Amino acid sequence: MSAERVIEVLDEAECLRLIAPGGIGRIAYSGRFGQAILPVNYKLHDGAIVFRTALRGALDQDLQTGIGAAEYRVAFEIDELDPSARQGWSVLIQGPAHRVESESERAFALEACVENWAPGDRELFVRIVPSRITGRRIRPAR
Amino acid sequence: MSAERVIEVLDEAECLRLIAPGGIGRIAYSGRFGQAILPVNYKLHDGAIVFRTALRGALDQDLQTGIGAAEYRVAFEIDELDPSARQGWSVLIQGPAHRVESESERAFALEACVENWAPGDRELFVRIVPSRITGRRIRPAR
Repeated sequence: MSAERVIEVLDEAECLRLIAPGGIGRIAYSGRFGQAILPVNYKLHDGAIVFRTALRGALDQDLQTGIGAAEYRVAFEIDELDPSARQGWSVLIQGPAHRVESESERAFALEACVENWAPGDRELFVRIVPSRITGRRIRPAR
Repeated sequence: MSAERVIEVLDEAECLRLIAPGGIGRIAYSGRFGQAILPVNYKLHDGAIVFRTALRGALDQDLQTGIGAAEYRVAFEIDELDPSARQGWSVLIQGPAHRVESESERAFALEACVENWAPGDRELFVRIVPSRITGRRIRPAR
């Protein structure tokens, strides 16, 4: 049938190394219609996930509403999966999400990092400070 | 700077067409440590998302625990994004998740569809019946 695969649990350092280059990640958050997931372009900055997104549609508005609250916990997932080889890794960040308010951090998000594919008027800059980082890799047994 | 992009809202029929081939999707669910996201291999069957996953680690166990409940609402996201061209689509399914119990559906999940990269003893077969399907595409303005 299929070659044996093993699941390897990744430690925090390895997770941070894997997600350091930035790219596409997915944020899961709680909205009016229950849980929702949105793909975004992120960067790692000072150990935190930073992204910016144009706000359009009900889901984004839920994110904006929630993120205004004192404590708004979200999940953020990054992965690199190869379906043909049936291997890859995924990292899960869990923690509170905050609106980026400071000028310096906004400047970082704007400039250094976070490409926004679909620019809009009402942009949201978000920072997720990990309270929990877990990850695993699936690979051939030998 | 960057070429103009537009966001196109996709109707349900177009969303279902896009996700029909199956492949990698991400499920978001509520666990002991708050929200979590897990990548899985899914197929579309009778208008529902079906996947199977080996259960390992705290997160998967949360999924199994939750899914045993009467009503366990989750989010499921599928996307195809091209970072270099800054375009792509994403589809979001929201709805209750159920454990697949019937032999016929298990047989479908086992056979027709759902490749499991990391086989294990305690496998979970899950079916998500969409109560809400939304999607959008980001593409160049012309």
